Amino acid sequence: MGKLLIVGTVAFDAIETPFGKTDKILGGAATFIGLAASYFKADAAIVSVVGEDFPASYLQLFREKGIDISGLEVVQGAKTFFWKGRYQNDLNRRDTLATELNVLADFRPVVPQAYRDADLLMLGNLHPDIQLSVIRQMGKRPKLIVLDTMNYWMNHTWDSLMEVIREIDVIVINDEEARQLSGEYSLVKAATMIGAMGPAYVVIKKGENGALLFHEDRIFFAPALPLEDIFDPTGAGDSFAGGFAGYLAETENISFGNLKNAVIHGSNLASFCVERFGTERLLDLKQKEIDSRLEQFSELTQFDIEMK
Amino acid sequence: MGKLLIVGTVAFDAIETPFGKTDKILGGAATFIGLAASYFKADAAIVSVVGEDFPASYLQLFREKGIDISGLEVVQGAKTFFWKGRYQNDLNRRDTLATELNVLADFRPVVPQAYRDADLLMLGNLHPDIQLSVIRQMGKRPKLIVLDTMNYWMNHTWDSLMEVIREIDVIVINDEEARQLSGEYSLVKAATMIGAMGPAYVVIKKGENGALLFHEDRIFFAPALPLEDIFDPTGAGDSFAGGFAGYLAETENISFGNLKNAVIHGSNLASFCVERFGTERLLDLKQKEIDSRLEQFSELTQFDIEMK
Repeated sequence: MGKLLIVGTVAFDAIETPFGKTDKILGGAATFIGLAASYFKADAAIVSVVGEDFPASYLQLFREKGIDISGLEVVQGAKTFFWKGRYQNDLNRRDTLATELNVLADFRPVVPQAYRDADLLMLGNLHPDIQLSVIRQMGKRPKLIVLDTMNYWMNHTWDSLMEVIREIDVIVINDEEARQLSGEYSLVKAATMIGAMGPAYVVIKKGENGALLFHEDRIFFAPALPLEDIFDPTGAGDSFAGGFAGYLAETENISFGNLKNAVIHGSNLASFCVERFGTERLLDLKQKEIDSRLEQFSELTQFDIEMK
Repeated sequence: MGKLLIVGTVAFDAIETPFGKTDKILGGAATFIGLAASYFKADAAIVSVVGEDFPASYLQLFREKGIDISGLEVVQGAKTFFWKGRYQNDLNRRDTLATELNVLADFRPVVPQAYRDADLLMLGNLHPDIQLSVIRQMGKRPKLIVLDTMNYWMNHTWDSLMEVIREIDVIVINDEEARQLSGEYSLVKAATMIGAMGPAYVVIKKGENGALLFHEDRIFFAPALPLEDIFDPTGAGDSFAGGFAGYLAETENISFGNLKNAVIHGSNLASFCVERFGTERLLDLKQKEIDSRLEQFSELTQFDIEMK
C-alpha cells in the first residue's frame, strides 16, 4: 500500500443535463479523484482549498472515505470555487454557464509533511505553476507523477505547462487536448509528440470511446463500458484518473502491464461516475459491484484467436 | 471451408481526401467484401452487375483472388455504377459529389446454382427488395445471413427493410444507422431494439472508434487499430464485413466466441483498407502482415487483472 497525494480542486458544481439539474453539489477534480481512489488500498491525501461556505458534512465525507484532508485549506471569509455547466442533448458537449474562482484565485498549496514522501503524486488540472510548486515541495521524488491539464493552460501558460510536463511520468488528457498540445490530429502521432515533451506514458481519454495508453512503441486500449444510459458525464475523467492512480498506489507496480490494468480500473470507476449526478454514485460503491463490472470489462474485450 | 455468397455493388469510385484524389478506380461494397474475404479459406462468390465499361483486368483480378464471378452480370450497352465523394479534413465526414446508378437501376440478381447452398450469405448494402430476392433464391437456408444497410433505405423503403431484417441473423451497421433504425441514442438500447426486429446478433461499427457485437445480454468490443495515418476510409466498413464473413466461412463456427474473433478479423482487414486509396492495400496483403497485425490487436486489448 503506497501513499497517494492528490492535488486539485474541491468545488461546488451546478449541473444541467437533459435529464435534470442540480443546485450546488460537491464537485472538483480532487474530489472525484479522491473518491475513486478511495476504493483502493492506498493512503490517500488531498491538497486543495475551499471557502467557509464549504459544509462540514463534506469534510466529514472525505474523512469517512479514509482520505487525509490535513492539506485541505479552509479560507475564512471566502467562498468555494464554483462551476456551473449545461450539457447538450448528446452529452458530448457542454457549455460553461458560470465559473467563480473564489478561493482558487489565490490558492498556494502546502503539502503536509506526512505526504512529502508520497509514492504517487496525482496532479489534477490546475495552473501549471501550482502543479510545479507541489512537485518542488516533495521531499523525495515520487515513484510516479501523473498530470492532468486542459486547453486553457495551453493557450495561456504554455511555457509553464512545458516545464511541468517535462517533470512528470504520466499525462492523462482527452483527445481534443492531446491534439491541441501536439498539433497532430492522429492520436498515435500526438502521443509520440507528447511523449517527446517528457512523460514516459501518455494516456488519451476519448470519453464514451474509451482510453488509450501509449508507452514507447506500445499501445493499450480500454473501451468505456457500454451503458444503457449516461446520466451526467461530470467528473468521469477525474474518476478515471482516481481509479488509475488509486490502483497504482495500491499495487506499487509501475510496469506497463500494471499500467494497462490501471487504465481498466480507471475506466471501471468512470463507468459508475456517469450513472448519477456528480459524485453521487461514487459515494457508496460496493466492492462486489466494482468486481462484477471488472468482470464485464474482461468479457467485453478478451478474445481467444489462435495465432499462427 | 464453407461457401460464402456475397451480394452487393461492384462499382467505380472517384475519391478526394485531404491527401489526394483519384480518377475512377475499382470500388463497391461487394468488391471490398470479396477482397477482404479472399484472405480466408472460403469458397467465395460475388453476385453483382457491371456495365461494358468495366475493365476485363478487374474481372481477372477477382478470379486471381479465387472469387467466383459467375454471378457477376456484365450488361452490354450500359455503364457501371459510379460514386464520387470528397472527405472533409478529419476524414469523419464525406460529401457525395455524384451518384450514377447506371446498371444498378435495373439490377435483378441471379444466384448461380452452385451457390444456392451457400453456408454464409453476406448481403451488402442494396435495396432491401433485392436483398430479399436473394434470400428467396437460396435452395437451403444459409447457416448465417449477414446484412448491411443504410439510412437511405430506412427513409424510403422501411417496410421492405423490416421484412429483410426479420429474416437475417447478423446486422452490421454503423452507429448513426443504428440510432436511426432504433430511434435510440444509446447504442446499448439501440442494439436491444434492433435485436427485437429479428437478428440474433447486432454489430455496430463506430469507425475509428471500433465496433460492438451484441448478442442477448452479451457485449463484445473491438477497437479500431490506432494508426499513424488514415489515408482513405472508403470501403473500411465493407472490408470489416468481408473479414468478418470470410473468417466465419472459413471456420464454420457461429458461436458467440467465434463471432468475437470474426469482429477482430473484420477490424484487422479494415485497418489495412484505410492505409491506401480504395482497394489498393487489399490487393496484395501478405499472410504475415495479417498475422502480425492480429498480434497487435491482441497486445492492444488483452490485459491480466486478477479477479477477486
